[in-house]
Amino acid sequence: MKPSLTFWYEFASTYSWLAAERIGTLAAPAGVEVAWRPFLLAPIFAAQGWTSSPFNLFPAKGRNMWRDMQRQCAGLGLPAVVRPDPFPQNSLLAARVATALPADARARFSLAVYRAQFTQGRPIADHEVLAAILSETNAPSGALAAADAPETKNALRQATDQAQALGVYGAPSFTTPSAELFWGNDRLEDAIAWSKNEAAVPVGNSK
Amino acid sequence: MKPSLTFWYEFASTYSWLAAERIGTLAAPAGVEVAWRPFLLAPIFAAQGWTSSPFNLFPAKGRNMWRDMQRQCAGLGLPAVVRPDPFPQNSLLAARVATALPADARARFSLAVYRAQFTQGRPIADHEVLAAILSETNAPSGALAAADAPETKNALRQATDQAQALGVYGAPSFTTPSAELFWGNDRLEDAIAWSKNEAAVPVGNSK
Repeated sequence: MKPSLTFWYEFASTYSWLAAERIGTLAAPAGVEVAWRPFLLAPIFAAQGWTSSPFNLFPAKGRNMWRDMQRQCAGLGLPAVVRPDPFPQNSLLAARVATALPADARARFSLAVYRAQFTQGRPIADHEVLAAILSETNAPSGALAAADAPETKNALRQATDQAQALGVYGAPSFTTPSAELFWGNDRLEDAIAWSKNEAAVPVGNSK
Repeated sequence: MKPSLTFWYEFASTYSWLAAERIGTLAAPAGVEVAWRPFLLAPIFAAQGWTSSPFNLFPAKGRNMWRDMQRQCAGLGLPAVVRPDPFPQNSLLAARVATALPADARARFSLAVYRAQFTQGRPIADHEVLAAILSETNAPSGALAAADAPETKNALRQATDQAQALGVYGAPSFTTPSAELFWGNDRLEDAIAWSKNEAAVPVGNSK
């Protein structure tokens, strides 16, 4: 059985960006296949009474997050983080476009959206910005049109529902085939190790 | 200049326990001196409208925290985490006793309180439990009486105020002499490295 991991990400999430930068390099040598699954945090936050990002609702938490992101970017050799205006960006269109894309193009497009947003401050709710990123990442033309199709909207809604059913309450999150849930970029290494281990131990022989 | 780090901990906090287990072993070889500072999260949470732990207020977050703690304890070779009843425990008395203790006894007592609470489920709001832990850790007798002294109560209040002024919004947190703030057990290594680096670069020569 090939080890696999589902990478649940929200386009407006800073730490999802860091995970998107790291996951390919970490998962490949471990032989872990990654399924990139965009979802929306807004409905999950709304269900617990939050109308914005916790980084806005709780200012001290927000200040530390931006400072921590500066340190993390420096430590990872990434460009300095740029705070998009407004933060959080409306991520609905980007998530629909990513949902409409096939796996390889989806990963490339998603990483490029994060970089545009968090290193250049480009507005990711903008059709033209997303069209440019699709073109830059050689994604299939037509993805922007497909974003508006009812089946795409449904697929994204289902992804968000499935994330919530798996216990996801923040982004990034990672789930293994046995539904083990890991929250946060800081748990990426653990999630990969767990996946690998899970795949090595057949369920029937686990005792 | 000797590198130093302030370790801000809340007795009811699970991840503060993990940091308390790890900080001595990590800081000593790095030559970083640690100041253990108990404080109370309740007033800080109350200021942002929370009347309990976020792990109770947000059930999915709570479920994942307990599962993550199981994994973390296994990974660190610690005994399995026990969920105290109720959770969170009232940490006021333990924090006052710790505040009344001198540095060395405070660290030993605090770690023992965490282990009593999170590996044995002992009630840490209980006078007798704390008296037993003081005795087990060879702490100065009289600390329990000193916990009720106005100067102890004031010192703890000031610690909480100072934490909040430094931007602390959760536990554990770590601050360096230049007020660099790190949140969470996952940032302990970064905080130690930062302290060491900060002490090596005289402020006047930092440009």
